[in-house]
Amino acid sequence: MSSSVPSASDSPVIATARRARAAAADLAPLPRTARDAALQAVSDALLARSAEVVKANAEDVARARANGTPDAIVDRLTLTEERIAAIAADVRDVIALPDPVGEVVRGSTLPNGLELRQVRVPLGVVGIIYEARPNVTVDAAALCLKSGNAVLLRGSSSAYASNTALVEVLRDAVAGAGLPADAVQLVPGESRDSVRELMTARGLVDVLIPRGGASLIQTVVNESTVPVIETGTGNCHVYVDAAADPELAVEILVNSKAQRPSVCNAAETVLVHEAVAERFLPRALAALTEAGVTVHGDAAWQRAGEAAGVPVPAATDEDWAVEYLSYDIAAAVVPDLDAAVAHIRRWTSGHTEAIVTADTAAARRFVSRMDSAAVMVNASTRFTDGGQFGFGAEIGISTQKLHARGPMGLPELTSTTYVVTGDGHTRG
Amino acid sequence: MSSSVPSASDSPVIATARRARAAAADLAPLPRTARDAALQAVSDALLARSAEVVKANAEDVARARANGTPDAIVDRLTLTEERIAAIAADVRDVIALPDPVGEVVRGSTLPNGLELRQVRVPLGVVGIIYEARPNVTVDAAALCLKSGNAVLLRGSSSAYASNTALVEVLRDAVAGAGLPADAVQLVPGESRDSVRELMTARGLVDVLIPRGGASLIQTVVNESTVPVIETGTGNCHVYVDAAADPELAVEILVNSKAQRPSVCNAAETVLVHEAVAERFLPRALAALTEAGVTVHGDAAWQRAGEAAGVPVPAATDEDWAVEYLSYDIAAAVVPDLDAAVAHIRRWTSGHTEAIVTADTAAARRFVSRMDSAAVMVNASTRFTDGGQFGFGAEIGISTQKLHARGPMGLPELTSTTYVVTGDGHTRG
Repeated sequence: MSSSVPSASDSPVIATARRARAAAADLAPLPRTARDAALQAVSDALLARSAEVVKANAEDVARARANGTPDAIVDRLTLTEERIAAIAADVRDVIALPDPVGEVVRGSTLPNGLELRQVRVPLGVVGIIYEARPNVTVDAAALCLKSGNAVLLRGSSSAYASNTALVEVLRDAVAGAGLPADAVQLVPGESRDSVRELMTARGLVDVLIPRGGASLIQTVVNESTVPVIETGTGNCHVYVDAAADPELAVEILVNSKAQRPSVCNAAETVLVHEAVAERFLPRALAALTEAGVTVHGDAAWQRAGEAAGVPVPAATDEDWAVEYLSYDIAAAVVPDLDAAVAHIRRWTSGHTEAIVTADTAAARRFVSRMDSAAVMVNASTRFTDGGQFGFGAEIGISTQKLHARGPMGLPELTSTTYVVTGDGHTRG
Repeated sequence: MSSSVPSASDSPVIATARRARAAAADLAPLPRTARDAALQAVSDALLARSAEVVKANAEDVARARANGTPDAIVDRLTLTEERIAAIAADVRDVIALPDPVGEVVRGSTLPNGLELRQVRVPLGVVGIIYEARPNVTVDAAALCLKSGNAVLLRGSSSAYASNTALVEVLRDAVAGAGLPADAVQLVPGESRDSVRELMTARGLVDVLIPRGGASLIQTVVNESTVPVIETGTGNCHVYVDAAADPELAVEILVNSKAQRPSVCNAAETVLVHEAVAERFLPRALAALTEAGVTVHGDAAWQRAGEAAGVPVPAATDEDWAVEYLSYDIAAAVVPDLDAAVAHIRRWTSGHTEAIVTADTAAARRFVSRMDSAAVMVNASTRFTDGGQFGFGAEIGISTQKLHARGPMGLPELTSTTYVVTGDGHTRG
């Protein structure tokens, strides 16, 4: 099932994937100017046709309200003229980014005179499975177009009308700019079966990127035979070393936990060296409590809570394991740095860990013993982000080790190919 | 199941994987000198203890002979003092290679003063599943040690005695050099169940690399929940363009097909532009026949065969799809370059394709429309090889697009981590 040649037995999802494969073949050789022109057309069309998108979105919003969907989720689902203008502006920002396609990653002239170049090329067909955020529809399509990939969009059924309208606008704009409309397609069907078909379309889809909650990501990782890039789960730790300045450590901790607790780079556990515990725990408890955070602590933290008159529920293994995504944090005192390392290696999801220390040797030891996508030294865990890292765009944050780790920008949406040029070279 | 902490319910395979995980944590922070010293100890020990390895190998060889194993496979299985000396020399070559660990892949100082570095780190635990080639046991272990990874070796049961003896030598040497012996382990058990356990040890094993025949690789790709790097299947094509010099094209074709037909970078199909067919086909048929190659041809090739008195069986879809790995080649005449591109994109396994042409525009068009790990311009497909590319070592040739594509050297056995250093940075 690796061909773009249609077959009579194709289901709607497979037929869509085959069209994407054919579009990808047409996209791959296009120069940057052609892809950028299509993105400009997309940005213009979003502005020109925002009214019809808002109208379609209103159907989804009304249905969500009727179903009793929580306000926060309805808000994420809602599109307004202003929000669409902001999305269109994001597309123009993508145009300005460097072209990842065609970059020569390495090259040399071999002893026999063969010229070897390793060149970035599009992955081909990228599938994105995501939740009820219609802005992702445009963001993902723009990043895929920029990197020369065809995209298959599988959003939440609760945003189906919005996504259908958006994709119609995108396809018209892409086709108007002379690119294949099938570079951007919605995966047909609102049922789980269509997701399952997408996950097993090995040979037609080059990579699947799930964006959303932990259960969505786990399902895709476990059931997909198409290669997956695992994103987003963040059980992040802050370790306050013996040599930490307590004030600085409190600032970093509170920022890591409470600046935006619902995101994957928020801290979920704090570990404190016992040498600094006496000075640190009371300040940390006060600051966390003021920020509205509940501490789930070990015996030392519970004693500190008792002394401060702050309730500190006992932390269990579940607290060490969980990604709260809320105003909660697990907390323990450890005898030394190595104990912190051991705790983190045992419980981390491999996203981001931070150490707060004035001791360079401690920082080096900690960094070299972590097994995560990002390690912060004297900085908040919240900085693990494509925008913060200066990548200009982000398709997700990978917590796997293969292909891409950490924030993924445009280069992570490419593969490479070796181009070898000779003048009749044969092997002896 | 992501922890190195043992559990009473662990099977022997899982217990082995957990020990590998613990060893990987100890290996990761080690400097190059420590890893190189261990490799030197391995090389020395192989020479010093070759007699006991040869003795163990003799058991495997005797059993293989008794089972009626073909001579070619018995030969691959056989170890002699000389072969062990060559393997030990290969280990010393690995010592001399540049260290992939710690390489700063990119870095910048962010506008807020945060220092960002993306650094190569070991993958962690690498599983290798391979056939009855005991030299792979040492090669794979050496490349994994050099790149700071713990390795789990799952060789063929028909080489179990050889592998057991080799791994004992390796572990003693590694431990004698002060590294954890569990950096090198044989996966226990000779049954298929132990392979299945390895393939589902997600969280304990970071990557599986199957090395061997197509059916082994397909099984691992389909059944593994551990990330896999797909290697080796090569349905490689040679396209002879209208602007090809027929003599040069014949040389490249015969070298691509017949220099060593049993390997993945050998050509399996030749496509010829109709404008050059009349001059090319008779010469190609003569040269291929002289090299012992049977051509499975389309109507044009069959007519040429008839004219030359060479039997040319009719090519079917099976011929376009198959990786012969033998003195056979599928052959067709195509109306133009784009038809060759369409044929190749339909049937290729994504390994290596070659174009023979004197026309730079044709070369550019062909290269930009391929979707394979390597594209040769006026050179034999046989050059897709880590040694030929100057990588100094090769753990396999990836035909997938994620993480690694084409010959994989030491950098492909690493991941990266972002190290971010500040002085109390928090996000506003």
